[in-house]
Amino acid sequence: MQVFERVPELRAFLSPLRAGRVVFVPTMGFLHEGHLALMRRARDHGATVVSSIFVNPAQFGPNEDLSRYPRDLEGDLRKCKDSAVDAVFLPSVEVMYPAGHHTTISVGELSVPLCGRSRPIHFAGVCTVVAKLFNIVGCDVAIFGEKDFQQLAVIRQMVKDLDYPLEVVGHPIVREPDGLAMSSRNVNLTPRQRAASTSLSRGLAAAREAFERGEREPRLLESIVRHVVSSQPEGEVDYIELRDATDLSALDGPVSRSAVLAVAVRFGGTRLIDNTVLVGPLSRSRA
Amino acid sequence: MQVFERVPELRAFLSPLRAGRVVFVPTMGFLHEGHLALMRRARDHGATVVSSIFVNPAQFGPNEDLSRYPRDLEGDLRKCKDSAVDAVFLPSVEVMYPAGHHTTISVGELSVPLCGRSRPIHFAGVCTVVAKLFNIVGCDVAIFGEKDFQQLAVIRQMVKDLDYPLEVVGHPIVREPDGLAMSSRNVNLTPRQRAASTSLSRGLAAAREAFERGEREPRLLESIVRHVVSSQPEGEVDYIELRDATDLSALDGPVSRSAVLAVAVRFGGTRLIDNTVLVGPLSRSRA
Repeated sequence: MQVFERVPELRAFLSPLRAGRVVFVPTMGFLHEGHLALMRRARDHGATVVSSIFVNPAQFGPNEDLSRYPRDLEGDLRKCKDSAVDAVFLPSVEVMYPAGHHTTISVGELSVPLCGRSRPIHFAGVCTVVAKLFNIVGCDVAIFGEKDFQQLAVIRQMVKDLDYPLEVVGHPIVREPDGLAMSSRNVNLTPRQRAASTSLSRGLAAAREAFERGEREPRLLESIVRHVVSSQPEGEVDYIELRDATDLSALDGPVSRSAVLAVAVRFGGTRLIDNTVLVGPLSRSRA
Repeated sequence: MQVFERVPELRAFLSPLRAGRVVFVPTMGFLHEGHLALMRRARDHGATVVSSIFVNPAQFGPNEDLSRYPRDLEGDLRKCKDSAVDAVFLPSVEVMYPAGHHTTISVGELSVPLCGRSRPIHFAGVCTVVAKLFNIVGCDVAIFGEKDFQQLAVIRQMVKDLDYPLEVVGHPIVREPDGLAMSSRNVNLTPRQRAASTSLSRGLAAAREAFERGEREPRLLESIVRHVVSSQPEGEVDYIELRDATDLSALDGPVSRSAVLAVAVRFGGTRLIDNTVLVGPLSRSRA
């Protein structure tokens, strides 16, 4: 496994390998089993697996947890190597955003609801860094986790709209044994917050059960999650919303197509997100 | 020469040619000698020359001349063939902007002054379509004319900021025998406007002469152009400005580094632009 901190060296390494497929797994590091699942998935997809580790300042707002974002470079590189990653791109902030950088990419409507409401610059920061990484790595396939459901939708939209010649693959959420969706941020939870944090996945599971029993009313499915999350006093709800799974538009009537039930809860300075996609058997009647 | 109206067929054609260099000349069609000079330059650069003809609605404001923009597809294809272009990409608006397209790219400050002031959405439209075309064509080199000086600066900024793996080449302005910079829009001028339109290049030439004689005061150099342009009653000045040639920042003091003297004048519904870059011998004194 080779590690590159600068763009020209990475490009020189990748250039002769371009005949085969290059599969890319971008990360912000502090790798957990969810990331490693993406890397194994990448191995299945292509001859050359490239990962990146970069905590992207452009996707953090001024009052967010950039300075508290956990880091473990040594452990990350060991995990990449153990996951048979061929090359790790490890740029500095100066390499990614040298003085005079001004360009930003916006995908419009998709970045407005859900996480976009409390994080107005977040998805422009995500799109910009992901576009840069796509151009640097020149990948044929890029793999992202589905925990960041809106991020995945935003990246799919950008790739489609800008005609990036690559396939975006979403990988299912990987969870702790008690249901908590794996996230690098989980390490920042206090023991009490950690205990309370299972309310997100429990709430989503309860709503999914109701959906599978035939419940189709968006507000009722949301209220099931809210009931479970509100049963613990540690977390403060940012949003609990059922939306169209493709365009994230609001659902006013009963669920009649693939929908995502998404939740964000703040535990002190740590904001956790989770979601579940609800797909058929859909309602026989829209009444 | 092959002509492609859709992306997958163009990509299939280009894919086996990627071992060599692909050089790209994007255009809005109604090709003139300026475009053909870019195509000949492309021939010198690379094994495969791709051009595109697409009048990009996203870079026209609501009151601009999109509907009046001249078109001559048959003549254009003949000129491309005569210029030894290998492939022409000829997409419809639906191919470039299918329903649901939302992504836009902004380069920030560079798009604000000069043409950006009267055309606030113009450069976001340019960046978005050029990024799409770069991703579609996968070129190693892209060639643009220097008449659209701000456009060239904006594209250079985007390519640098987004790490596009390609070289941007600017080609000198090609002029009519009487000095008018070649533009597809020139055909829309009335005979009186056409006669008056030489005031742009005459004004710039007069300012350049003064610069070469040692004049370094931005406002004075601008006033020389204004004097010539205002001597004819047909045109209405949009701007006449001397700015830093690299970042287009305003020049408050005497010219001490490479600067661009840029002009935009409206002749009825036809807006013409022109420019000249002023480079050393620079002033011995900043006084």
